[in-house]
Amino acid sequence: MLGPNRYGKAETRLVRVSRDGDTHGLVDLNVSIALAGDLEATHATGDNAAVLPTDTMKNTVYAFAKEHGVGEPEDFALLLAGWFVGSQDQVDRATVSIESFAWDRLGPHSFARRGDCTRTTTVTVTATTTQVVSGLTGLVLLNTTDSEFHGFVRDGYTTLPETTDRILATAVDAKWRHSGDTGDFGQSYEKAVEALKSGFVGTYSFSLQQTLMAMGSRVLTERPEIAEVRLALPNKHHYLVDLSPFDLTNENEVFIAGDRPYGLIEGSVVRDDAPAATAEWWL
Amino acid sequence: MLGPNRYGKAETRLVRVSRDGDTHGLVDLNVSIALAGDLEATHATGDNAAVLPTDTMKNTVYAFAKEHGVGEPEDFALLLAGWFVGSQDQVDRATVSIESFAWDRLGPHSFARRGDCTRTTTVTVTATTTQVVSGLTGLVLLNTTDSEFHGFVRDGYTTLPETTDRILATAVDAKWRHSGDTGDFGQSYEKAVEALKSGFVGTYSFSLQQTLMAMGSRVLTERPEIAEVRLALPNKHHYLVDLSPFDLTNENEVFIAGDRPYGLIEGSVVRDDAPAATAEWWL
Amino acid sequence: MLGPNRYGKAETRLVRVSRDGDTHGLVDLNVSIALAGDLEATHATGDNAAVLPTDTMKNTVYAFAKEHGVGEPEDFALLLAGWFVGSQDQVDRATVSIESFAWDRLGPHSFARRGDCTRTTTVTVTATTTQVVSGLTGLVLLNTTDSEFHGFVRDGYTTLPETTDRILATAVDAKWRHSGDTGDFGQSYEKAVEALKSGFVGTYSFSLQQTLMAMGSRVLTERPEIAEVRLALPNKHHYLVDLSPFDLTNENEVFIAGDRPYGLIEGSVVRDDAPAATAEWWL
Amino acid sequence: MLGPNRYGKAETRLVRVSRDGDTHGLVDLNVSIALAGDLEATHATGDNAAVLPTDTMKNTVYAFAKEHGVGEPEDFALLLAGWFVGSQDQVDRATVSIESFAWDRLGPHSFARRGDCTRTTTVTVTATTTQVVSGLTGLVLLNTTDSEFHGFVRDGYTTLPETTDRILATAVDAKWRHSGDTGDFGQSYEKAVEALKSGFVGTYSFSLQQTLMAMGSRVLTERPEIAEVRLALPNKHHYLVDLSPFDLTNENEVFIAGDRPYGLIEGSVVRDDAPAATAEWWL
Repeated sequence: MLGPNRYGKAETRLVRVSRDGDTHGLVDLNVSIALAGDLEATHATGDNAAVLPTDTMKNTVYAFAKEHGVGEPEDFALLLAGWFVGSQDQVDRATVSIESFAWDRLGPHSFARRGDCTRTTTVTVTATTTQVVSGLTGLVLLNTTDSEFHGFVRDGYTTLPETTDRILATAVDAKWRHSGDTGDFGQSYEKAVEALKSGFVGTYSFSLQQTLMAMGSRVLTERPEIAEVRLALPNKHHYLVDLSPFDLTNENEVFIAGDRPYGLIEGSVVRDDAPAATAEWWL
Repeated sequence: MLGPNRYGKAETRLVRVSRDGDTHGLVDLNVSIALAGDLEATHATGDNAAVLPTDTMKNTVYAFAKEHGVGEPEDFALLLAGWFVGSQDQVDRATVSIESFAWDRLGPHSFARRGDCTRTTTVTVTATTTQVVSGLTGLVLLNTTDSEFHGFVRDGYTTLPETTDRILATAVDAKWRHSGDTGDFGQSYEKAVEALKSGFVGTYSFSLQQTLMAMGSRVLTERPEIAEVRLALPNKHHYLVDLSPFDLTNENEVFIAGDRPYGLIEGSVVRDDAPAATAEWWL
Repeated sequence: MLGPNRYGKAETRLVRVSRDGDTHGLVDLNVSIALAGDLEATHATGDNAAVLPTDTMKNTVYAFAKEHGVGEPEDFALLLAGWFVGSQDQVDRATVSIESFAWDRLGPHSFARRGDCTRTTTVTVTATTTQVVSGLTGLVLLNTTDSEFHGFVRDGYTTLPETTDRILATAVDAKWRHSGDTGDFGQSYEKAVEALKSGFVGTYSFSLQQTLMAMGSRVLTERPEIAEVRLALPNKHHYLVDLSPFDLTNENEVFIAGDRPYGLIEGSVVRDDAPAATAEWWL
Repeated sequence: MLGPNRYGKAETRLVRVSRDGDTHGLVDLNVSIALAGDLEATHATGDNAAVLPTDTMKNTVYAFAKEHGVGEPEDFALLLAGWFVGSQDQVDRATVSIESFAWDRLGPHSFARRGDCTRTTTVTVTATTTQVVSGLTGLVLLNTTDSEFHGFVRDGYTTLPETTDRILATAVDAKWRHSGDTGDFGQSYEKAVEALKSGFVGTYSFSLQQTLMAMGSRVLTERPEIAEVRLALPNKHHYLVDLSPFDLTNENEVFIAGDRPYGLIEGSVVRDDAPAATAEWWL
């Protein structure tokens, strides 16, 4: 028996240049599309009468980039998702996810890739619902102090010493769900990122969970258009080096940056009156 | 308001050598643990009275590897997940995910890493439920023929020609949910992999969806202990090179192996009488 | 017969915090060390009487970070390389390579990783010579216009059309060799990066080779302390999408960002009176 | 002043299917080409009159795969390198590097990617010389015992305890230079890999340098056509877990598989009467 299923074209790499006048614009996206609907036949027998080729989805990305321009990635995702649901009767649900790579301007038509993090969006459209999720991945933040960890459970396998001063570092993977499906998504993103950063910087932390809650709450406080924030925060451990064999002290100055294992703190902060999500979005 | 949350230690790298006699055994695992439960306080104020450190989880992995041995990864995950739910009152749910790397024996105490794919398991335990999911990632399969694709929808953005002979290639990402929580997980895994391979090899394919359905169905047919199979199959496109500018024909002999974009076909095959899943498992 | 050989500790991850006062400093390095010298015995019989353990090299990195501080990566590499040659008679040559990750300040003790590129250095010290090489990797630059490519050789396998307007994009991998072994390496680096960027931005390009030459020459013109610049510039192809099937024009607006294959242009620009290199450095 | 330089097309992904009869063959390659010669003009002014486009090199790979077939990667690289030097007067030297991915046969036209390691070759051709280098990367080998490490230098930064029983693990990166430019490169490769493995397995090791020497020597002993072997062997550390806090012993049974840092042992073994290399090959 066929269970839940979907299909689409993943990772269509689009670079869109705006050449209005001498000063060019640059948009650099990685677009993934997934469609669900009446797809029994192709699974059962390979009858593709209901299958829009994934190649066509790719073509649509490029053609729409020309016809409509791109704008904010959320808007472009809404345009694409709406198109597939609207134009293909057999499609019940379209999910468009976009990674957006930022570039710094070096000249009228020259750019350097920024590289600090990747902006993301996932838009899900059905005949009756539209859900917009924005986010980012790979934003690496670090506080050299103002982080403690103590008072935790100790069982027979616990050896961790308590600490009142440690490095707190994480690579933020954040998604936030908008209450509606319109708005100035560019400004919303910029301000949400600022809120995440200031939540991290401004919290004297007794656990990464507390910092997570502070970051998510800050976003909700400052951005009324956002209903819910989900954060996955790896605790990028920095181990204090024992320098005593060399007759040296180490007062939180010299650290090993560890790779694995790492803590992983995942949680969401939800506005009291948030409308329910209409689609899975926390993948 | 705090929404769903969990925390744990990710990617604890464990190598366990069995030294019973001259012929050693080798188990090579990457263990990730996530606990959920009454964690409001640490999020709200950084009060860690209910927080078992992730460092303790890491220690537990290593200590249990000594105390109990490892065995099949599903069994080791069950042992760990049961321990955390059973020993920590505030923990409602423990999820243990393990990647297992296979090695070929070269001698009594010598090995070469196999590298063909990674075996996976995710076990979720609560006070009343236990769910075992097995799987694999990175198994790359390719048929040089017996694959067609035609009869699909054409809209204004469709340029793909129909084909009656193409390469079909994919990197299998598969998970399957067991009906129960006991059994010979080693044999079950080996036979499920065989079923996936034979489903791929033995299907004359008119769409990758049809192949997906065949692969999942084959697993369910051959393995009664498995309730459901979920597959994510990238369509690793191989583009026929146009050699006509060089006065050469190309009868499906010379291909470009493409990186991006790729099709992505996701679907599940469920036994009619499958018990419902008791935890999220398709991440 | 044993040929050329060396050994050492690779990828020691060091984070050094300066806590002088309330405003902390942060240095984030990846240090690799390789020693060569009289190592016949350990290769022949496993006699390690001349082998300083790689674990000791790691310890030295951390201890020196405390004892001497870190400063510019070139200076730290000089300190380490000199130490191994000076303190171990059997060591003839020490090579220390450092990757340095930049962070932006967010507050007195808060930082965000920059991510635009990685600064590198390789220092090689023998009893009589010292060579300092600086560089960077992963700096992605793009011009949306002012790039042509035509007038090239055509043979029987050439199908590429000539173009008078294309995107030119590359990920700069650069190394430059200093004439001496002292100086303000921090300022030298910042100015060399500026020169590379301005060489890329300011060149109306007829080939990526021409751009490479302009970038390297700019560095030599502006930085008298640099003797030679070597550049490896992948030509990150951006393919113009054919939108004519959809009755759309594409006047250099919509591009596919390709992954593979890519052009790879490698070359060096050397000052006329540059002293000869005393060690391999272009790996 | 322009220094050493070259250019070419990197990472052309070629899949070649042989369809002679019902049982198909599959060759899966990643081909990189670099040409050097009279390239002053394009660097100086962007005059491309001597520049064969990298796009043409890509086309040549695909066309030659059809016209001549592929065979062993060394033979295909020789064919390509010879072509560029022979057909383009301005080209003095052509270097062709190929990665070859192995597949296991599952059926007459079905395959699974093996994944244990990647076979490599680098061929360099000039008007008067031809050099063939074969090799592999990513072959991960592990001995659970028969490895000691002691008797090493101790200085003020040495804390490593001596050991008479440890895990020895490495990811072999090997290249070997052939004396000539003809032969059965397929058999030569298979036997060289066997020699590397048996050298690793059969050596009771007192240092990884000793193991390196044994592996290289074994190749030279068994393969008269090979003049020189170069090995880069990361010492993939496996750290014994201290289980004493849990009142458990750990007699070399439970290990942490470390990521970074790692030892890196590099060395070559050369036949006494080996002809000199005619081109750089150890990159």
